[in-house]
Amino acid sequence: MRGISLALTAPVAYPMLPSLMKAELISIGTELLLGEILDTNAQYLAARLPPLGIDLYYVSKVGDNLERLTEVIERAWRRSDLAITTGGLGPTEDDLTREAIARVLGEELSVDPGMEEQLRAFFSRRGVAMPERNVKQATLIPSARALPTPRGPAPGWWVEREGRVIVALPGPPVEMEYMWEQQVAPELERRLAGRRTVLVARVLKTVGLGEGHVDELVSPLLKSTNPTIGVYARADGVQLRIAAKAPTKEEAWRLIEPVEAEVRRLLGDIVWGADDDTLEGAVGGLLRQHGLTLATMESCTGGLLANVITNVPGSSTYFRGGLVAYATEMKIDWGVDPEIIARHGVISAECARDMARAVRERLRADIGIGITGVAGPDPQEEKPPGTIHIGLDAGFTEPQSVSYQFAQGREAVKRRAVTTALALLRRTILDWQGRPAG
Amino acid sequence: MRGISLALTAPVAYPMLPSLMKAELISIGTELLLGEILDTNAQYLAARLPPLGIDLYYVSKVGDNLERLTEVIERAWRRSDLAITTGGLGPTEDDLTREAIARVLGEELSVDPGMEEQLRAFFSRRGVAMPERNVKQATLIPSARALPTPRGPAPGWWVEREGRVIVALPGPPVEMEYMWEQQVAPELERRLAGRRTVLVARVLKTVGLGEGHVDELVSPLLKSTNPTIGVYARADGVQLRIAAKAPTKEEAWRLIEPVEAEVRRLLGDIVWGADDDTLEGAVGGLLRQHGLTLATMESCTGGLLANVITNVPGSSTYFRGGLVAYATEMKIDWGVDPEIIARHGVISAECARDMARAVRERLRADIGIGITGVAGPDPQEEKPPGTIHIGLDAGFTEPQSVSYQFAQGREAVKRRAVTTALALLRRTILDWQGRPAG
Repeated sequence: MRGISLALTAPVAYPMLPSLMKAELISIGTELLLGEILDTNAQYLAARLPPLGIDLYYVSKVGDNLERLTEVIERAWRRSDLAITTGGLGPTEDDLTREAIARVLGEELSVDPGMEEQLRAFFSRRGVAMPERNVKQATLIPSARALPTPRGPAPGWWVEREGRVIVALPGPPVEMEYMWEQQVAPELERRLAGRRTVLVARVLKTVGLGEGHVDELVSPLLKSTNPTIGVYARADGVQLRIAAKAPTKEEAWRLIEPVEAEVRRLLGDIVWGADDDTLEGAVGGLLRQHGLTLATMESCTGGLLANVITNVPGSSTYFRGGLVAYATEMKIDWGVDPEIIARHGVISAECARDMARAVRERLRADIGIGITGVAGPDPQEEKPPGTIHIGLDAGFTEPQSVSYQFAQGREAVKRRAVTTALALLRRTILDWQGRPAG
Repeated sequence: MRGISLALTAPVAYPMLPSLMKAELISIGTELLLGEILDTNAQYLAARLPPLGIDLYYVSKVGDNLERLTEVIERAWRRSDLAITTGGLGPTEDDLTREAIARVLGEELSVDPGMEEQLRAFFSRRGVAMPERNVKQATLIPSARALPTPRGPAPGWWVEREGRVIVALPGPPVEMEYMWEQQVAPELERRLAGRRTVLVARVLKTVGLGEGHVDELVSPLLKSTNPTIGVYARADGVQLRIAAKAPTKEEAWRLIEPVEAEVRRLLGDIVWGADDDTLEGAVGGLLRQHGLTLATMESCTGGLLANVITNVPGSSTYFRGGLVAYATEMKIDWGVDPEIIARHGVISAECARDMARAVRERLRADIGIGITGVAGPDPQEEKPPGTIHIGLDAGFTEPQSVSYQFAQGREAVKRRAVTTALALLRRTILDWQGRPAG
């Protein structure tokens, strides 16, 4: 421990090497402020800046209002090396991005004959005459050059002055993403090659402990500045993010390796995956690895468990099938012992375990999982909403069950129950696997 | 028509009345700037401000960095009447929202004994001791009062000074939304009553026609300025948004009523719901209304249909149960005719219809639905990914089926198949219901 944390807090070669570019994103459009559409452009761009060695400091949304738009772009121009705007490049009166940039730089807008020609060509290719108001999409200022796109009528702008850059991209994601990939990213890559600090990150995913506990377990590492370590609570468990900066990706990964190893040592097998892994995918991998098959009987989760399991490509190799036994009568039809229901009720750990046994036998699987409970909003058998019982039955180990009371909405209760069921399945296989054979 | 559209384009009394409050949203978290998670909180809140008469002017994202966070909150404190932050209220070292607000207001943080008690109670209810670092979640400043929540450990803050307000909400959507609905929205409503221009909107939801067709059908109404009408394509069909401004909700609704009636007249029964209605809820209502029961057998959708159906509270009254027959052998176990599979393959409309028949008989329901196809990524029976066959079998009408080819990812294919199945079920019941009895 001490050794490691010393190593981490000791100065590393280039934690202070600044990124070349301080960037900021500005998403433009009143519909964003009205919550009518979700701003996916900001997320798309945010995810693509760190690998280029660009630090994103601010993201803003602003409406189609010239005064406020100018204010936001003016601030970006002052405080950031690179500002990327999306939206406001259309032909209508409330598409004001060009006007705002022109104001901030104190330059005049004028129609560029070449751009106008291309614009008219775009429309005639579609067999329509260009509406005259579209001419504004062919305007430039002296510091701007056009970023043409085959995907739509609106060219973007690359604006550059005094070593600072504003890139104006269209709002429609297909146009924006194409322009980014084809023109903006390569240009930034070219300029930054060899003179930057890149940021790469490894996300480790855990289940079984709360955010506070995980944070305590890794606390000796939290002082580290390069890599940095962050702990976040997510719907499917607590995640740790290990992010390192270096002149090259390879060097950055070399900084992450020992820290990742130490985090994995500290957390043990509550770590189920990394980066884009999903819990259902990790569990599927375990099932496949041990040649085990699975069947499910769900009551309150109504098929969500089976659905999540089958979101994994290739799940047909280990998932035998699932039953959604919503009515008590259905549970009995499918082999749940009426005695057990009579004695303990359907909302019970006993019933969950017997559902698991019944579906395992009925579908001839190695492992059966049963989930019963009260999704809500109304109580059932005097049990409050959020009561969940998860049973697991496998030939190779004694029946398991987990019960808890969860206080949230119906769909959240279902999601939480499914995550818990997958965690129980994972834990059961790991413990069995860990046993002395025989 | 003409009467309506004239009435709509005539000047209305109060489109210009200003809102009382200038608001701004601040989403906090480095993971947002890294594009690792999508900021849905900002959209949720943005959509709920206009009905309160609050204008949203700016939305910002900022990382877990005390200096920049303080800068952003300080600007909001200067330029806005109301600033709402989400995130940064957790127990970890990089949860800095409280510290930043305290800095901006120049006030001291101190632990509130009552809050600390509640916090410890929250953990003991879960049967765990509170990690000491969580104590910071029980701190306040003189200008802040706590917004407690039963949904999570982190209380929010209502900060008020010199007539300006900062509301700090937790990042996890379930906690944030509950706190907004239960505490923040009612408080704002109370304060603003009678002194504002409110914007209210009615969203009408349709299925069965494309955006272009719906747009054409209502085109005579699109000129309208108050209410305005917008047409949007959504995953579960085309939606129309009818939005009106007035000094009170009642007056605004009076402007919307005649337009909504006319839109409904123009679109007929492709309109399946409004506002927060879900297609599964609308279909559930029809089933209940006619005392019909439903059962499902799913292959490629893996339980998603059953899951969506059972997201509706009270669905147990009409949903008998569901089978997830992932393996062909399972389909046969559950009564699908091997002949049909041999002749047409499992990826066929014939198989989908027979799955519907089999599950209807096996689960003794009035209506059975069967879904088979190729979710992807790999082809099956030489059928490409995205091939979907949906069968419906009901005692009261001839077997139905819908087949199509859909080009997207695995999960999108599953969602689209489920929406199509619900639309087919709705259409079948409506047509049957529309028939002369006998």
